[in-house]
Amino acid sequence: MGKNRGELWTKFMDYYSAVFADGALTEREKSLIALAVAHTVQCPYCIDAYTKASLEKGADLDQMTEAVHVANAIRGGSSLVHGVQMRNVATRLGM
Amino acid sequence: MGKNRGELWTKFMDYYSAVFADGALTEREKSLIALAVAHTVQCPYCIDAYTKASLEKGADLDQMTEAVHVANAIRGGSSLVHGVQMRNVATRLGM
Amino acid sequence: MGKNRGELWTKFMDYYSAVFADGALTEREKSLIALAVAHTVQCPYCIDAYTKASLEKGADLDQMTEAVHVANAIRGGSSLVHGVQMRNVATRLGM
Amino acid sequence: MGKNRGELWTKFMDYYSAVFADGALTEREKSLIALAVAHTVQCPYCIDAYTKASLEKGADLDQMTEAVHVANAIRGGSSLVHGVQMRNVATRLGM
Amino acid sequence: MGKNRGELWTKFMDYYSAVFADGALTEREKSLIALAVAHTVQCPYCIDAYTKASLEKGADLDQMTEAVHVANAIRGGSSLVHGVQMRNVATRLGM
Amino acid sequence: MGKNRGELWTKFMDYYSAVFADGALTEREKSLIALAVAHTVQCPYCIDAYTKASLEKGADLDQMTEAVHVANAIRGGSSLVHGVQMRNVATRLGM
Repeated sequence: MGKNRGELWTKFMDYYSAVFADGALTEREKSLIALAVAHTVQCPYCIDAYTKASLEKGADLDQMTEAVHVANAIRGGSSLVHGVQMRNVATRLGM
Repeated sequence: MGKNRGELWTKFMDYYSAVFADGALTEREKSLIALAVAHTVQCPYCIDAYTKASLEKGADLDQMTEAVHVANAIRGGSSLVHGVQMRNVATRLGM
Repeated sequence: MGKNRGELWTKFMDYYSAVFADGALTEREKSLIALAVAHTVQCPYCIDAYTKASLEKGADLDQMTEAVHVANAIRGGSSLVHGVQMRNVATRLGM
Repeated sequence: MGKNRGELWTKFMDYYSAVFADGALTEREKSLIALAVAHTVQCPYCIDAYTKASLEKGADLDQMTEAVHVANAIRGGSSLVHGVQMRNVATRLGM
Repeated sequence: MGKNRGELWTKFMDYYSAVFADGALTEREKSLIALAVAHTVQCPYCIDAYTKASLEKGADLDQMTEAVHVANAIRGGSSLVHGVQMRNVATRLGM
Repeated sequence: MGKNRGELWTKFMDYYSAVFADGALTEREKSLIALAVAHTVQCPYCIDAYTKASLEKGADLDQMTEAVHVANAIRGGSSLVHGVQMRNVATRLGM
C-alpha cells in the first residue's frame, strides 16, 4: 500500500512502529493485545502477523489462547450487556 | 432521513417493509432476529425499536433473552473460532 | 481451540450448548437467528455451520434467505438511522 | 488522549492530518468519505466531527445524505452478499 | 441471492441502484465512498466490486489509496476517541 | 440480564469469570486486553468496567493509553491491509 501516496504510508508506519515498541507495556504484551484485537475484527492478515509476533516476543499458546478468550468474552459480552437496554425498554412498556 | 434525497429513503423503506412483512418467516420471528442483530451491532435505536416490536408481535422476555444470548454466542464465538487460524500458523512455525 | 487452556473451552461450550438447546425458542428458530448474526459479522466458519444447522433443524432456503435480509436491513439500517444525529448536528449549526 | 504517551498521539495526529489534507482527493471529498465511515462504525464523536467538517468544506445535506445511503447499502449489502456462501453450502448439501 | 424470495432481492436492488446513480454526488465519488466502506467492513466481494467500479468511473490508484487511508484513520480513530471516556472514568476514580 | 433464562446467564458468567481469573496471563494483563477490545467494539459499559478493572489490577494510564493505541493501530490497520486486495484487483485489471 506504500506505492501510491507513499508519504501517508510512511506516516502511518511511523506511528505504528512507535505503538508496538517497548514502552509502558512490553512488546510481548502489545503483541498479545494485538492478537486479541485481530481476532475481534477477524482480520486474517493480522491474525497471521500477531500469532508470529506473539511467539517471537516470548508468549506461548496458553497465553495466546487466553487472549483470544478475552476477545470472545468482551466482544460477545458487549452485545449481552446491551440487553440491559432491552430490559429497560420492556419495563418502560410495562412488560 | 427522508427530508433529503427522499426517493432513496422511500426505496429503502419499501425494501425494509417487505423484509419485515409476514413471509416464509412470521413477523414475530423476524422481530426476534432483528433484535439479535441490533444487539450484535450495538445500535441503540434498533434495540429500542425491536424490543418494542418483539413484544408487540407476541414474543416474551424469555424468548428475547435467548435471542440476545445467541447474538453473544455467535458474535463472540466468531472470534474464538478464528483461533483455528492462529493454531494453524503456530503449528506451521513449529511451535 | 480446546487443546490449550481446555477448561475455558469446556466452559464456553457448556454455555454455547445451553444457548442452542430447545428452550423458550426452538432449535430451528435459534439456528435462523445464528445464521443472521453469522452474516452480520461475516464469519465464514459460522455461515457454514448455521447454514447446515438451519437445514437440519427444518428451515428452508426461503426462510434462511429472509433471515439474511433481516441482517442486511438492520445492519445497514443501523448506519442509516444514525443519520438522525447528523441531521441534528447540521440543524444546530444552522444549516 | 494526548496527555499520556504524548508522542503516540502526536504521531497519529501527524498521520491523521496528512490523510485529511488536500491531495489526490479534495478535503470536501475526504470529509464525505469520513462521514460515511463514521456512520458505518456508528461513532457518535466522529459523526459530529464530520457532519461539521463536511458542511465547512462545502458539502450540502443532499450530498451528505447520499454518503450515508452508500454506507447503508455497502454495510448491509456486505452481509447480503455473504448469502452466496450460504447458497453454496446448501447446494453442496443437496438442498 | 435472488433465487429465493426474489421480490426482496428486487426491492433491495432497486434501492441499491438508486443509491449509486449520479445524484448530488457523482458515480465516481460514490464508488470511492463505497470502496472506503468496503475496507471498513473488510468485505472481500465489495472490495473487488468497488475497486473495479472506482477505476471504471474515472478514479485512479492515488485517489483510491487516499480513500482507504480515510477508512483506516476513522475506523481506528473511532476507537482512539473513545479513550476520552476511559480518561473521564479514570479521573472520576481519582487516578 | 440474569432475570430471564437465568441458567444461560449463570453459565456465561461461569465462563467469563474463568476467562478473567489469573492463569497463563495475569488479571492485570487480561484487563488491559479487555480494555483494548472494549475500545475496538466501542462498548461504553465495557470501557467503564475495564478502565476501573485495569486500574484496580495495577495498570496505570500510560499502559492503558498504549493499549488503546494498539486497538487503534490494529482496527484501522486491518482496513488498510485489505488495500492489498484492492491493489491485486487493480493490477489484474491492468491499471
